[in-house]
Amino acid sequence: MAGAAAIGVDIGGTKVAAAVVNPTGAVLARARTATPHRTTAPAVVEQAIVDVVTQLRDEVGGQGIDVGAVGVGAAGFVSEDGEVIRFSPHLSWRDEPLRAELARRLGLPVVVDNDANAALWAESRFGAARGADDVVMVNLGTGLGGGVLRRGQLERGRFGMAGEFGHMCVVPDGLRCECGNRGCWEQYASGNALVREARALVEAGGGGSALVAFCAGTPAALTGPCVTQAARDGDPASVGLLQEVGTWLGRGLANVAAALDPGLFVIGGGVGDAGDLLLDPAREALARHLPGRGFRPMPQVVGARLGNDAGLIGAADLARRGRA
Amino acid sequence: MAGAAAIGVDIGGTKVAAAVVNPTGAVLARARTATPHRTTAPAVVEQAIVDVVTQLRDEVGGQGIDVGAVGVGAAGFVSEDGEVIRFSPHLSWRDEPLRAELARRLGLPVVVDNDANAALWAESRFGAARGADDVVMVNLGTGLGGGVLRRGQLERGRFGMAGEFGHMCVVPDGLRCECGNRGCWEQYASGNALVREARALVEAGGGGSALVAFCAGTPAALTGPCVTQAARDGDPASVGLLQEVGTWLGRGLANVAAALDPGLFVIGGGVGDAGDLLLDPAREALARHLPGRGFRPMPQVVGARLGNDAGLIGAADLARRGRA
Repeated sequence: MAGAAAIGVDIGGTKVAAAVVNPTGAVLARARTATPHRTTAPAVVEQAIVDVVTQLRDEVGGQGIDVGAVGVGAAGFVSEDGEVIRFSPHLSWRDEPLRAELARRLGLPVVVDNDANAALWAESRFGAARGADDVVMVNLGTGLGGGVLRRGQLERGRFGMAGEFGHMCVVPDGLRCECGNRGCWEQYASGNALVREARALVEAGGGGSALVAFCAGTPAALTGPCVTQAARDGDPASVGLLQEVGTWLGRGLANVAAALDPGLFVIGGGVGDAGDLLLDPAREALARHLPGRGFRPMPQVVGARLGNDAGLIGAADLARRGRA
Repeated sequence: MAGAAAIGVDIGGTKVAAAVVNPTGAVLARARTATPHRTTAPAVVEQAIVDVVTQLRDEVGGQGIDVGAVGVGAAGFVSEDGEVIRFSPHLSWRDEPLRAELARRLGLPVVVDNDANAALWAESRFGAARGADDVVMVNLGTGLGGGVLRRGQLERGRFGMAGEFGHMCVVPDGLRCECGNRGCWEQYASGNALVREARALVEAGGGGSALVAFCAGTPAALTGPCVTQAARDGDPASVGLLQEVGTWLGRGLANVAAALDPGLFVIGGGVGDAGDLLLDPAREALARHLPGRGFRPMPQVVGARLGNDAGLIGAADLARRGRA
C-alpha cells in the first residue's frame, strides 16, 4: 500500500476536486465536479465523490497506475475516529457516516479527515513544514481554519475538533459570525474579513484608485485576489487592508502560541497568497503579544507552499498511510 | 524505582513546600521553608530546596522509607527538556539549569516541570481527571495557569511553554497585565481579578454587608477566600463577583476548547474552591460560546480534588516515573 498512488479528494463549500497523487506528493491526474452547496443532499455529494474517483481510476488505470486508497479532506467537523462528518457549515451533512459508505461503494480503503488537517499534513510531508514536528497551520480562506501537528502527528482532539481556531473569540461582543457567536477570529482575519473591509473602504470613499478600478466603482465586485493584486502594485489602501488583517492574524497567533507553543506557524489559504504583505504585520503583532517574549524562543511564521493542492495531496497521503 | 517513595517540591511565588509521597499519591511527610520572592537569588532558592529535601529524607529514613527521586514543580517557564527554568515572573530565575544542579547536590534523580503541569499530572493520576486522556487543567490562583494532557501524556509544546492560557488575550486593549500585555485572560479570571473587583465594589459602596464585615470597612483587607465564604453564606454581591469571574472563565474555556478540544476541563487553584458558585457560570458561558455547539459533544467542567497538594503529589509522581 505505501508505495501505491492514492486519490485525494477535497470537498469545500464550492467544489469537489480530486487528484491522483504519487508517494512523493506529485499530482498525476486531476478531476473536478459539480459544485455542492449547503442545500445539496448528502447522497448527491457522495455520488459526486464516487464519480470523480471512478473517473480518475479509469484514467490512470489506462496508464498502468494502480490506485490503492482514497483520502477525503472535508470542510467540516469530522469525528475523532474519522468515521462521521458531524457537521459542516457549508454542506448539509449532519452525522453522516461518510467513510464506511465510500469504502463500500468504491471497494477501496478510505480515510476521511478535516480539510485543514489534510492541508497541514501535506505541508508537513512535502511543503513548508517539512522536517518540523510541532506545527500549527492557519488557513485564511473564506473563513479561518486550522490544524495542529504535535510530535509529527496530527492532533484531532477528544472529539475530532481541535484546531477550530477561527471561532476563538478575539473581540468580546464583536462582529457577528456565521457560527452564531460574536467576535470570532475569522471575522477579523480571513478572506471574508479582507473583502468586507475593502468594500467598506471603497464605499466610504477611502479606497485607493487601484481598488476602485478593480471593481469598476462597484464595491460588491471586489474580491480578495483584487486586494492582494492592488497591494502588490503598491496601492497604499490595499497594503493597509492586508496590514489590518495581518495584525489580527498575529494577535490570534499569539493566543494560539500561548496555548499550544508550536515551533512553526504555516499560513495558507487564498489570503496567504499575499505573502509578506500579510505575514510581516502578523509577525510583528505576534512578537508584540506573545506571552513571555524576550524570555523564550519565537515560533516562526511562514507561508504555505502547496497552494490549493495541499488538501488533495494531504488527503491522498493520509489515505496511503491509513490516517496517521 | 517505580515502587519507591519520592519527594515532591512545589515552588511558588511565596513558598517552597515539599512532601514525601508514596506510589499511590499519599503524602507521608511534609516540610516547608522560608519564602522566596522575586529578589531572592537563585542560589538561595536552590539551597532551600536542598534543605527541605534533606530534612524530609532524614525524617522518613528513620522510618525505613527510601526516597528514590525528587520532583520539582516550579511556577515558571521550564524548557521542553526539563533542564532549565527559562523565566519565572515570581522568582529571579533566568535560564537557570536547576535540574542538573539539584541532581548533583542531592545525589538522586531529579525532574523539573511547570507547577501547573505537575498539578494536572496529579489530578490525572489520583484526582478529578483519573481515567481521562484528553484533559486541560486551568488553575485560578494569583494568576491563571494551565496544563494540557493529551493521549494521557503531558503536552509541553515545542519550547516547554504550552498551556500558558492566562496570557491569551480576551479583551483587546483591555486591563494591563504583569506580563506587559493588555487584556490577558488572567486579568478577568483569577484570584487577583476576584479580589480587585471585590475591593472596587466595596469602595464604590456596592459591596454587600458580608463583604464589608469581612474587611472591617477596609477594602484592601479583602481576600479571595473572604469573597468565597461570603458567597457561600448567601451574600448576593459575592455570588455576583464569582459569577463574573466564572463567566470569564467559561468564555476563555470556549477558546481553549476551540483550539485543543479536550474532553474534560479540571479547574483548580484557590478560586476553584468556590466550586459550583464559580463552575456553574463557567459551564453556562462555555456552552454559549463553544464553536459548533449543538453539533458536538460538550467537554465536562469539574473542580480539582487534590487542592494545594496537587503540585507536590504530581511532581513526586513525575519524578518516580522519570517525567512521563
